[in-house]
Amino acid sequence: MEKTIAVLPGDGIGPEVTDAAVKVLQSIAMRYGHTFHLKHAAIGGCAVDAYDNPLPEETVAACEASDAILLGAVGGTKWDQHPAHLRPEKGLLNIRKRFGLFANIRPVKAVPALLGSSPLKEEVAKEVDMVIVRELTGGLYFAEPKHRTEKAGVDTLVYTRPEIERIVDKAFEVARGRRGKLTSVDKANVLETSKLWREVVEERKAFYPDVEVEHMLVDSAAMKLITDPRAFDVVVTENMFGDILSDEASVITGSLGMLPSASIRADGFGLYEPVHGSAPDIAGQNKANPSAAILSAAMMLRHSFGLHSEASAIEEAVMGVLEDGYCTGDLYTAGKRTVSTEAFVTKVIEELERE
Amino acid sequence: MEKTIAVLPGDGIGPEVTDAAVKVLQSIAMRYGHTFHLKHAAIGGCAVDAYDNPLPEETVAACEASDAILLGAVGGTKWDQHPAHLRPEKGLLNIRKRFGLFANIRPVKAVPALLGSSPLKEEVAKEVDMVIVRELTGGLYFAEPKHRTEKAGVDTLVYTRPEIERIVDKAFEVARGRRGKLTSVDKANVLETSKLWREVVEERKAFYPDVEVEHMLVDSAAMKLITDPRAFDVVVTENMFGDILSDEASVITGSLGMLPSASIRADGFGLYEPVHGSAPDIAGQNKANPSAAILSAAMMLRHSFGLHSEASAIEEAVMGVLEDGYCTGDLYTAGKRTVSTEAFVTKVIEELERE
Ligand SMILES: CC(C)[C@H](C(=O)O)[C@@H](O)C(=O)O
Ligand SMILES: CC(C)[C@H](C(=O)O)[C@@H](O)C(=O)O
Repeated sequence: MEKTIAVLPGDGIGPEVTDAAVKVLQSIAMRYGHTFHLKHAAIGGCAVDAYDNPLPEETVAACEASDAILLGAVGGTKWDQHPAHLRPEKGLLNIRKRFGLFANIRPVKAVPALLGSSPLKEEVAKEVDMVIVRELTGGLYFAEPKHRTEKAGVDTLVYTRPEIERIVDKAFEVARGRRGKLTSVDKANVLETSKLWREVVEERKAFYPDVEVEHMLVDSAAMKLITDPRAFDVVVTENMFGDILSDEASVITGSLGMLPSASIRADGFGLYEPVHGSAPDIAGQNKANPSAAILSAAMMLRHSFGLHSEASAIEEAVMGVLEDGYCTGDLYTAGKRTVSTEAFVTKVIEELERE
Repeated sequence: MEKTIAVLPGDGIGPEVTDAAVKVLQSIAMRYGHTFHLKHAAIGGCAVDAYDNPLPEETVAACEASDAILLGAVGGTKWDQHPAHLRPEKGLLNIRKRFGLFANIRPVKAVPALLGSSPLKEEVAKEVDMVIVRELTGGLYFAEPKHRTEKAGVDTLVYTRPEIERIVDKAFEVARGRRGKLTSVDKANVLETSKLWREVVEERKAFYPDVEVEHMLVDSAAMKLITDPRAFDVVVTENMFGDILSDEASVITGSLGMLPSASIRADGFGLYEPVHGSAPDIAGQNKANPSAAILSAAMMLRHSFGLHSEASAIEEAVMGVLEDGYCTGDLYTAGKRTVSTEAFVTKVIEELERE
């Protein structure tokens, strides 16, 4: 298989962790006889510095000429005082909208070797295995009117039926490929958009008789993610609720540094990035955990390229290294051996070659 | 002191727990020489059944003729299929708006005797002691346009400067009376209302030089409430974020059944209610934990009536009973003695009389 990947390292630890993921992709390419062409381009703070634009047209062009995007992380205190259109995050918001990446998919799975780092009791966090499907290009993030004056601010929460249908359908498909349970999260007792959302979920479920559906209010979901996270299989929700709940969910297993994400559209094109941020405090120190970026590359192979065995091989290799007791500093608990970013990647590649 | 209290028991376990709180208030009245006149009235599902209105005018009149409101809980599956204006929750939304109860105050404090019930590791949940101040009459809950058609739904998030100022000032005052730290939660990297919110917080902080202020994005706050809840003293945020974060916070200490809340306005008038819901599954079984309702009555004495020693006496009595090893079923862990709602109240009153 021959594919082109746009690599957008971004800021902070972004370059280190995307380098790591690229090394793993190259090892996979060699072993399985694929060719991955890489197009590096700038996004976020470094793009603001170089192009005065967090998503330069050069970068858009590189992505358009690619089959998928691998992103590191954006942001840093350096750009905190910039006006909104010159902020690193704006690059992320723009690329989502520009490429219509409406479905954000975030798996959260407890890693037995890492439960010691979870803030939750081990019996609560163990066996957690869920996927959060967040609508990513609608709602409060983008709808108009959206402005402010000296005296008031206005944001608008709009959802149209087709926007809800496509994300709900995506979530049903994800649920179908898993344990067959879908939790749709809304605030139907207060929001009109949520009433429409709930109605669409009710309509679409006829097409997925193999999936069991429940509706949950966002405040109840925020509680249940902590008290009983194992109860969730697939969660689907709108953009702002998804932002909050997926970040909440990302810390319950204690392995934020392990979590990948995909932001995709219907034709298979997608952007893959770690859930963690740019961590400027440890940037350039060869300390960052590259697992989330490596696992994001695995998601790319599976979702955008249909390379299932290759994706599983990467996932197993990362878990193998952790089970052998190696980890980066963020995951250290007594008895483990801390290694550098580069050493961790080398171990993953060795593990891949052993498989 | 002579005061009139509107008692709105509501649905499910609401009547049992408000009865309990009323008994405690009567014991306080006797002991400290106060007179509390009680006006019972209907709200929620039972009001829908009796008046076809979740907040009947009779109830509004009773509240208007009172100095504070004590509420139990509203809701139940019985009314789930009703149209929005005949839903129990609508009674709650209407009473907040009708009486301008713009500040929702929710203390979350770890009870050492109950840490075993927390989903969090004991070392994470212990010593948690925060207050969430949620804006309660603005934002997505009430702003227009708010409607839906067959094809789309629209909700509007509006905040005006005076709406933000009064809640932020309230939060600064709460922080000043505690550890002097205020965390303002917003989504300023995406929402215009949040940019205004952040600006107002920055302006108002000049008037509270004794309070240290930090801004936090709502997604980061959702994570930090789990990974490091002790880092929070007072949190202030808008209506929808407050709904989600205060429910999330309510489960971290494992003692949801203990948490009171106040919804107040500037002149001291307020509505006091447990954070927990109406729990229809255990209603009428003399099993419900009355602590949250009793502690809500204590908040009423402190905030609306300025009766500080009386409020503290109640709080100490409830903690005393728990420390003696008595609890209702929801808080049972090995070694404790489970008692009924009524027996628990009797113990609290005995403890009050001993103090
Ligand atoms: C950076 C920010 C705009 C973004 C969001 O809110 O979507 C981030 O929090 C995320 O979840 O990817
Ligand atoms: C019942 C519902 C409308 C209400 C709200 O969202 O405000 C409740 O969740 C609360 O927090 O008091």
